[in-house]
Amino acid sequence: MEQNELAKTVRELENRLAKLEKNSSQLTMVLFSGDFDKVFAAFIIATGALAMGKKVSLFVTFWGLDAIKKPAFKTSGRQFLEKMVLWMRPKGPDKLGTSKMNFGGIGPRLFRFMMGQKNVESLPSLIGMAQEMGIKIIACQMSMDVMGVKKEDLLDGIEVGGVATFLSDSFSSNTTLFV
Amino acid sequence: MEQNELAKTVRELENRLAKLEKNSSQLTMVLFSGDFDKVFAAFIIATGALAMGKKVSLFVTFWGLDAIKKPAFKTSGRQFLEKMVLWMRPKGPDKLGTSKMNFGGIGPRLFRFMMGQKNVESLPSLIGMAQEMGIKIIACQMSMDVMGVKKEDLLDGIEVGGVATFLSDSFSSNTTLFV
Amino acid sequence: MEQNELAKTVRELENRLAKLEKNSSQLTMVLFSGDFDKVFAAFIIATGALAMGKKVSLFVTFWGLDAIKKPAFKTSGRQFLEKMVLWMRPKGPDKLGTSKMNFGGIGPRLFRFMMGQKNVESLPSLIGMAQEMGIKIIACQMSMDVMGVKKEDLLDGIEVGGVATFLSDSFSSNTTLFV
Repeated sequence: MEQNELAKTVRELENRLAKLEKNSSQLTMVLFSGDFDKVFAAFIIATGALAMGKKVSLFVTFWGLDAIKKPAFKTSGRQFLEKMVLWMRPKGPDKLGTSKMNFGGIGPRLFRFMMGQKNVESLPSLIGMAQEMGIKIIACQMSMDVMGVKKEDLLDGIEVGGVATFLSDSFSSNTTLFV
Repeated sequence: MEQNELAKTVRELENRLAKLEKNSSQLTMVLFSGDFDKVFAAFIIATGALAMGKKVSLFVTFWGLDAIKKPAFKTSGRQFLEKMVLWMRPKGPDKLGTSKMNFGGIGPRLFRFMMGQKNVESLPSLIGMAQEMGIKIIACQMSMDVMGVKKEDLLDGIEVGGVATFLSDSFSSNTTLFV
Repeated sequence: MEQNELAKTVRELENRLAKLEKNSSQLTMVLFSGDFDKVFAAFIIATGALAMGKKVSLFVTFWGLDAIKKPAFKTSGRQFLEKMVLWMRPKGPDKLGTSKMNFGGIGPRLFRFMMGQKNVESLPSLIGMAQEMGIKIIACQMSMDVMGVKKEDLLDGIEVGGVATFLSDSFSSNTTLFV
């Protein structure tokens, strides 16, 4: 290789390397679960990464949608089965059950109390913090369609997208988790 | 460094970089769960990635094996406990329960109905699509041994392998998920 | 670029590339679950990776803490709710329930029996092996605080740390899993 050609190749390598290195500053998660404890873990990880200056992309699907619903919304204009499912699912981060020791809703109250005593952030305020710090939350279009969830039922500032959106984020993220 | 030596080093760097870049075209998942909703999510992610031209490796273990069983197979030639466990587990993707709202099997039927209404692919056809698109499915040898599952009980085209197979795929994959 | 300058740039690129390549020799997991089957899967993956010469970092949080508790410890000097939660949670890897087919504790015994028959390592010995092979286990400080778990309640050789410890390991690991 000639000197000039070599210099050009080196500059190209530098660009390609920089692109790969950027992956270490991105984290992509699927939030599939709607259990209080798992949603809490996801947002602790997300806010931690945001505080370290990383970009965080959260793809919310299936039961995870419960965690990003508004505390109250009207279910008018939906089919009977959609209404029924919406009625049975918790509305928003303050209504979620725990994956273990739920005891008909006593468990989550107990844990919220114990967490408050140790000055741990509440889940709704943790989600708010993540949004202020610039998390990108994408609600899964297909899950929303199947369960009859509309964009206006979700917390403000949430995008709606497909699995391709998640995948393109995840392929440029070093850390990828399914919660 | 001399000009010639330098050129050689640059070519080596180029090869090493290309190898790392290839990681962005590979996705490796562990399918541990046998819940309808989680298996569905795994195959939506897999077919999405395959459609984007990525390579997908799926290591199926524990309850996940239920999702890749044939709808019917004989349990002859197994120990009593193995037969009992096989008899209690669902046979194939069309028999799986949901992780929430299962209600003794009414939940999955309800979701299948709601998904059909929105023209969402059924789970068995999604698995078939993934196989046609070239997904690599590896059933975990150890789980099969413990639960008495044989290769011929599984859908056609599935390899059997150990955790080392999964690990070597995952270390060359940018996106790694445990479902 | 001049010859000397070029050589310097190439050496820098080499170092940056080597750093990225190191990611392929590291695996980072969150162990959130305390279910026998999931904990078992996590330690099979961990010991497999360690046997391949990889570095393994395991961040243990929430129910996962049950898996790394000592079989017996005193709960004195804790608040009433903390004592109650500790009393209700299994103590150590030999007391964990399964995520499916638990049947009030018969399931885990059944699986342990079936695994023993196939000469599969028991969970406590698998954890011991991972520790001997050099796994890094970090117990989540915040979860411990909330549930009233103390460092001396955990198996020997376990570090205590925050989510930042996990994140910095995960951003230099090619394989990242949430179990």
